[in-house]
Amino acid sequence: MSTSLPHLLSLRDLPAATWRALVESAERLAGPAGRAPLLAGHRFGMVFFNASLRTRTAFEVAAFDLGAHAVNLQVGGGLWSLEHRDGVRMDGPHAEHVKEGFGVLARMVDAIGLRAFAGLVDAAADAADPILHAAARASTVPILNLESALDHPHQGLADALTVRRKIGERAKVVLTWAPHIKPLPLAVPHAALLAFAHEGHDVVVAHPEGFDLNAGILADATRLAAAAGGSVQVTNDRSAALAGARVVYAKSWGSPARYGRDDAAEAVQAHPDWIVDGAAMARTDGAVFMHCLPVRRGVVVADEVLDSAASVVLDQGAARLDVQKATLCRALGVQA
Amino acid sequence: MSTSLPHLLSLRDLPAATWRALVESAERLAGPAGRAPLLAGHRFGMVFFNASLRTRTAFEVAAFDLGAHAVNLQVGGGLWSLEHRDGVRMDGPHAEHVKEGFGVLARMVDAIGLRAFAGLVDAAADAADPILHAAARASTVPILNLESALDHPHQGLADALTVRRKIGERAKVVLTWAPHIKPLPLAVPHAALLAFAHEGHDVVVAHPEGFDLNAGILADATRLAAAAGGSVQVTNDRSAALAGARVVYAKSWGSPARYGRDDAAEAVQAHPDWIVDGAAMARTDGAVFMHCLPVRRGVVVADEVLDSAASVVLDQGAARLDVQKATLCRALGVQA
Amino acid sequence: MSTSLPHLLSLRDLPAATWRALVESAERLAGPAGRAPLLAGHRFGMVFFNASLRTRTAFEVAAFDLGAHAVNLQVGGGLWSLEHRDGVRMDGPHAEHVKEGFGVLARMVDAIGLRAFAGLVDAAADAADPILHAAARASTVPILNLESALDHPHQGLADALTVRRKIGERAKVVLTWAPHIKPLPLAVPHAALLAFAHEGHDVVVAHPEGFDLNAGILADATRLAAAAGGSVQVTNDRSAALAGARVVYAKSWGSPARYGRDDAAEAVQAHPDWIVDGAAMARTDGAVFMHCLPVRRGVVVADEVLDSAASVVLDQGAARLDVQKATLCRALGVQA
Repeated sequence: MSTSLPHLLSLRDLPAATWRALVESAERLAGPAGRAPLLAGHRFGMVFFNASLRTRTAFEVAAFDLGAHAVNLQVGGGLWSLEHRDGVRMDGPHAEHVKEGFGVLARMVDAIGLRAFAGLVDAAADAADPILHAAARASTVPILNLESALDHPHQGLADALTVRRKIGERAKVVLTWAPHIKPLPLAVPHAALLAFAHEGHDVVVAHPEGFDLNAGILADATRLAAAAGGSVQVTNDRSAALAGARVVYAKSWGSPARYGRDDAAEAVQAHPDWIVDGAAMARTDGAVFMHCLPVRRGVVVADEVLDSAASVVLDQGAARLDVQKATLCRALGVQA
Repeated sequence: MSTSLPHLLSLRDLPAATWRALVESAERLAGPAGRAPLLAGHRFGMVFFNASLRTRTAFEVAAFDLGAHAVNLQVGGGLWSLEHRDGVRMDGPHAEHVKEGFGVLARMVDAIGLRAFAGLVDAAADAADPILHAAARASTVPILNLESALDHPHQGLADALTVRRKIGERAKVVLTWAPHIKPLPLAVPHAALLAFAHEGHDVVVAHPEGFDLNAGILADATRLAAAAGGSVQVTNDRSAALAGARVVYAKSWGSPARYGRDDAAEAVQAHPDWIVDGAAMARTDGAVFMHCLPVRRGVVVADEVLDSAASVVLDQGAARLDVQKATLCRALGVQA
Repeated sequence: MSTSLPHLLSLRDLPAATWRALVESAERLAGPAGRAPLLAGHRFGMVFFNASLRTRTAFEVAAFDLGAHAVNLQVGGGLWSLEHRDGVRMDGPHAEHVKEGFGVLARMVDAIGLRAFAGLVDAAADAADPILHAAARASTVPILNLESALDHPHQGLADALTVRRKIGERAKVVLTWAPHIKPLPLAVPHAALLAFAHEGHDVVVAHPEGFDLNAGILADATRLAAAAGGSVQVTNDRSAALAGARVVYAKSWGSPARYGRDDAAEAVQAHPDWIVDGAAMARTDGAVFMHCLPVRRGVVVADEVLDSAASVVLDQGAARLDVQKATLCRALGVQA
């Protein structure tokens, strides 16, 4: 990997100064600076192995707003899939290796964004984020992580920015697991946890037994929170966790311990009472409700919460535009 | 719905002054004004639930010609499908609700176009255009209808503009049903009918028994035509209708009465003699031939007609660019 | 076909002066001229019947770099397929004819690129490149071939440019067939052969028995090479061919004689020793290794070659950007 390049692969190893610079840059770019041709002539390539609405639209608009251009490449929608393993005889479904795919792309654009979700089959493989790191090794231009198996830095940055705007001070934040119809990746809860840790909030992660987050991410978040004057705790008692919360951040995720087992979907349906409803919000200290979207109404969160004034999910989405302008400027070496 | 926003949802309730302003703006934008940066810095989001060639290309080019940028979002091609019903527990195939999908999109762009075809299963549901109206309620920016279950305003505007350019005066227009291999939506015939009514033409709708257009649309068209000095008639006798026609507008549509029945496809194949061929055109007063495209040669219209000088289908397509520049300017509040 | 339009359909009938002008223009556009708004306000439509990474990205970036805009239309990804035959009753899967599809598109953009791969079912049909020529007949703006059944002019131009940059003089070039897991089209070997012929190289085409290239293309290449002071030879003895080679260009292709037969895949797997490995490269005169990409590692070429300093495949990919700027300028009538 060209470690000298300003990649943005994960929040877990982002220096505190870089984190601060990005959040402050995002705030500046939310104003008139965000509509000036700071990035005139720059090209940004986006490679999506998975579907996207917000990430893709926000980058395409961010690029346009700043005078740059974003190319959208959807694997499966006009682009073949890519092999990322070294030394493999490529006689299977992958028509191209990341080395060549990203190698050439890096000769045509000035930075590359990559979305490659967790496979949800092998927890150890997912924890290594292999496609993301293979791309970073192959690329001669900066790589931005648009959600990988392990992290979703742009979501985390937008979440942090939203709490700054809505709360404005260090606070108790509850990151709560929620029910779903199928097991989902852990990138978003990891990112939110790391982001709130960077901000020095007092984060409580609440989930049923068996839904532990990645231990390495949890350790990094604990370290980052301590350095920033905050804390990280984990509990299976959501009810207790909600007391005093200023932020309730809901997200469902699958149990890595159940990957590949028949009961993976059953497990995320087994705790319908973890839905965030009015009663849950009533236990908090007037908390705002957050979710990264897309969200399933009536499954993850009750309409009464999502349609209430406490919900800031649309603000989170809108913050993506500001944040992605900031990461784009950093990747392209432009002060903003 | 934010009724104060300059949505363009249907031609049926468009004030006469707005109709006139749009058509005249389209004519101006067909000239050098259409290549000036009138919309510099504006962003337009397009959400397609169904395939598109002309609509999408025309908007993307219109935006570029005027200094704006169009983001193309294809549901199913990198974007999940959306739930539009209120109060539903979302445990089915839809990963996101229109409220959140359009709510966030409206924070990233300045206007949104939406294509959501008829389901062709439940005529009453289609007649309510539920996705379009749910999007208009959820959005804080103007919504443009890029073809819904019930209407296709941009096609109607382009059709009206083409008749202005080719005929230049009020005339007898025959909107004739045509055969097909499968039942198609009614949005285009509705739009053409409403557009020609706005223009004050004498419109005759000709179709076999059982293929009635939506009664509400027909009533609105009759009202609009009368107000503009024209008329609307319906007949099952195409031969008589063609006499004296200056315009033959062909389009196939399915029979709403047969939605969900096994004979729906059979029904549109049961009248092969409704193809528009040379003999049919010979009955007219030297009429031009129109079709919205895409068109099936040898099924809807004979090659001898489509390849003749009477065909203006390519001009209709080209007019889309002028028209969509006009609706974009209106949506974005720019005088053009 | 509007033969007066500056289409770029094939390298086989390109005048020597045009070839030279394109290559020289590509070299100029590799410098600062390639980032100037030479094409401000121009619109380029791209219609892909097949997947693309490099071609599509390079055109989108080329257009942006020069102030133009490229619209990307993917058949099957939001665009229906097109009928190209004349006089057909369109009651099958094709919803639109090329005449209308390209006819309207040509009214919205200033030039059109088209990718339509070989069908690999009927060699005679492929050899006629029917979709490409139907599009050229239907279009009133220049058509650029983005890879057809028979040719891939932009790849050939990029290959020629890469050899100019890496070798810089007329040289022995071996175009060698390579193994694969399935039969592939012949457009790329044809294009490379024609390009190296235009450049006056001494080209040796090496392939196992039964994998003959199109006879017409071979005849044209022989004629072009002779006119440019070079030569074309064909052999089944790769080992002998490699002696003295300065360039090894590997590419797999299917055997047209086997189209539609059960053993088509078996045939391309029957010569695993045709892989380009270190031993093969050792027979050359310090040759560079070329491939158009995407390439299957361990099947077409050994890692030891592709990862060595001899490999210039990424440079070939990068040259696409320069070349496509040149063909775009030519199509749009801009001196560059």
